[in-house]
Amino acid sequence: MLELIRSLAVENTTKIVLLSLDGLGGLPRPETGRSELETARLPNLASLAGEASCGLLRHVAPGITPGSGPGHLGLFGYDPIAYQVGRGVLESLGIEFDLRAGDLAARGNFCTVDGNGLITDRRAGRIATDVCVRLTERLRTIRLPGVELFVEPVKEHRFVLVLRGHGLSGPLTETDPQALGKAPLPVRALDPAATRAAELVNAFIDESRRRLADAAPANMILLRGFDLLPALPRFPEVFALRAAAIAAYPMYRGLAKLVGMDVLKTGGTFADEIGTLREHWQAYDFFFVHYKDTDKAGEDGQFDAKVAALERFDAYIPSVRELRPDVVIVTGDHATPSILAAHGWQPVPVLVWSRYCGADPVTAFTERACAAGTLGLLPAHHLMPLAMANALRLTKFGA
Amino acid sequence: MLELIRSLAVENTTKIVLLSLDGLGGLPRPETGRSELETARLPNLASLAGEASCGLLRHVAPGITPGSGPGHLGLFGYDPIAYQVGRGVLESLGIEFDLRAGDLAARGNFCTVDGNGLITDRRAGRIATDVCVRLTERLRTIRLPGVELFVEPVKEHRFVLVLRGHGLSGPLTETDPQALGKAPLPVRALDPAATRAAELVNAFIDESRRRLADAAPANMILLRGFDLLPALPRFPEVFALRAAAIAAYPMYRGLAKLVGMDVLKTGGTFADEIGTLREHWQAYDFFFVHYKDTDKAGEDGQFDAKVAALERFDAYIPSVRELRPDVVIVTGDHATPSILAAHGWQPVPVLVWSRYCGADPVTAFTERACAAGTLGLLPAHHLMPLAMANALRLTKFGA
Repeated sequence: MLELIRSLAVENTTKIVLLSLDGLGGLPRPETGRSELETARLPNLASLAGEASCGLLRHVAPGITPGSGPGHLGLFGYDPIAYQVGRGVLESLGIEFDLRAGDLAARGNFCTVDGNGLITDRRAGRIATDVCVRLTERLRTIRLPGVELFVEPVKEHRFVLVLRGHGLSGPLTETDPQALGKAPLPVRALDPAATRAAELVNAFIDESRRRLADAAPANMILLRGFDLLPALPRFPEVFALRAAAIAAYPMYRGLAKLVGMDVLKTGGTFADEIGTLREHWQAYDFFFVHYKDTDKAGEDGQFDAKVAALERFDAYIPSVRELRPDVVIVTGDHATPSILAAHGWQPVPVLVWSRYCGADPVTAFTERACAAGTLGLLPAHHLMPLAMANALRLTKFGA
Repeated sequence: MLELIRSLAVENTTKIVLLSLDGLGGLPRPETGRSELETARLPNLASLAGEASCGLLRHVAPGITPGSGPGHLGLFGYDPIAYQVGRGVLESLGIEFDLRAGDLAARGNFCTVDGNGLITDRRAGRIATDVCVRLTERLRTIRLPGVELFVEPVKEHRFVLVLRGHGLSGPLTETDPQALGKAPLPVRALDPAATRAAELVNAFIDESRRRLADAAPANMILLRGFDLLPALPRFPEVFALRAAAIAAYPMYRGLAKLVGMDVLKTGGTFADEIGTLREHWQAYDFFFVHYKDTDKAGEDGQFDAKVAALERFDAYIPSVRELRPDVVIVTGDHATPSILAAHGWQPVPVLVWSRYCGADPVTAFTERACAAGTLGLLPAHHLMPLAMANALRLTKFGA
């Protein structure tokens, strides 16, 4: 499919803005029977929906709850089942570690083991982040033959391990036995090509045990999510777009960078992001703009806070329209219903606005209204081709 | 999928009529907010829609604008991405050239080159068709070892080249450098099996240059869209239907012939086509009836003319119903919105009427109304199985 798009993509002067509200979709609150989107006052989104084609995006497959990685890859046009990104890679992107092709990345936890080496706490009592920083400095001094090692603190007991060198390969099994009272497992190669990587990682684990012997409760490590940085077709080449990402959070900047977008420097608020959009308007054809507040409120189970986050977002729509984009898309990377207080599997409302988007009967941007839209229930990775078509950037298929 | 259908297809006495309005789908005109279908007075289509199941057809994939080839293959039940037909083949079908299995076909242009052999006009000043006819007669006298050559005029500077012989293979690269001031390129084989074909075509090009030396502005040729006539499963065998095509335009007759339908002789008007339908009613189980006027008006950007074309079509619905078909389908091969003045990617309204089609809430045959129909958003190549089911021509799958 990406090859088909690549063969049909043409350049012109149109501009596409993809506004992604993290965790956009919700569920009705039992007391009122209305979802967050149905409760919020969203006059600008409603008016945009009235002029747009609407539908629901399904990011992975029915019933599958997308993580941030698959959620965004889908929005960027990549089938998230065909293009899988390991957790180690995602964690590295989340701290903006400069991963390179061929790097093998894993998530790490400090943990506690007893005198027999059996795990007594899989998270080492959630040590403070500054303790984590100090202990990763110890692990960084480990040397392995033929590879460069990076051990980067994340938060509390979490860190990232990256091996850089020729001929490394994943995937490897994880070392966490997922139970107390057991010893950490050695890693095993899940592919014959990964044998050398497995040996190196096991050597790293042995050496870590020695260096952390006096560091209880963080006297051992657990590693998982080993995989290589995947080679993804580059977004700017597939779609023939000068593409920019505007996101305040590292994870989303990392995901945009992974597919080859330019990641623009921006401030910590959505107002800053919209300012960045305005500032770089002439230099790019495509903008991915990320709004985080909806997901945060949903994850916290704060229905009213999510309603408020939606209303704050709505107020920025006129600033985007003032720039006179040719295509505006509003959607999200997954649902985060407040009553779930977690990512959900529910399809996510989407609207596509352009001069040529066609009319549909939808005049409100809600889960229920969008279900009756002409876009129907759309796999997320079909959204980019639709955006391209609306920007008149795809030629005819066949004569 | 076609193999599944083939295994389930049974014969009976029911009759299916597929009425295809070329370029049916449209977009709202900004002044009124209503599309061509929403503007036209279509009492017969509205009444049929009220009794039918409705939906929207997507011919290729979201955002992909279908050419006439993929648009029709979808309607005929073939996944247009799995079954691709080269431009040379389509151009040959468009002039009703009798292509045979194994023929290698290409589109040709006469062009102008200067004294150094560099292109100065890629269309040779759009020479008159009678000049084209005369020059193709010159090229026809070229002889190549082991193959039969056909050079057929199309219109103005355009012609078709067909090589017939054993062991020819495509695809080949095109010779058009797509720029002025460059020399035409030799063709290259895109597959090792195509090496001999490439050599033959390059010999043809060299000889053409010599024979056209005194024919400026048409003193050279450009060739593209080289491919073999694809071997498609035959429609009458897959669906176990005696199938007839009724179309005034050569391209659509050619596409129907490509899948093995009988192409009926008919006149140049839709009234003639309906007369042909009536005349052959007993002899066939399935009729593909093509209506061209909607596409022509849309391509010309003539909104009112497209509305009028729709109203003219509507008037023929009673004549079709009088024949008492078991299944009537009304749809199109792609959208041609007047405001785009070109083929569009938008899904196309479809209605399926039969005793067993089921009711849905749709009572108007428009883009917006059909979006709420029970057929939903249907890949075009799923329409034929649905037609077969409504004709009670498919047995149960599994015991």
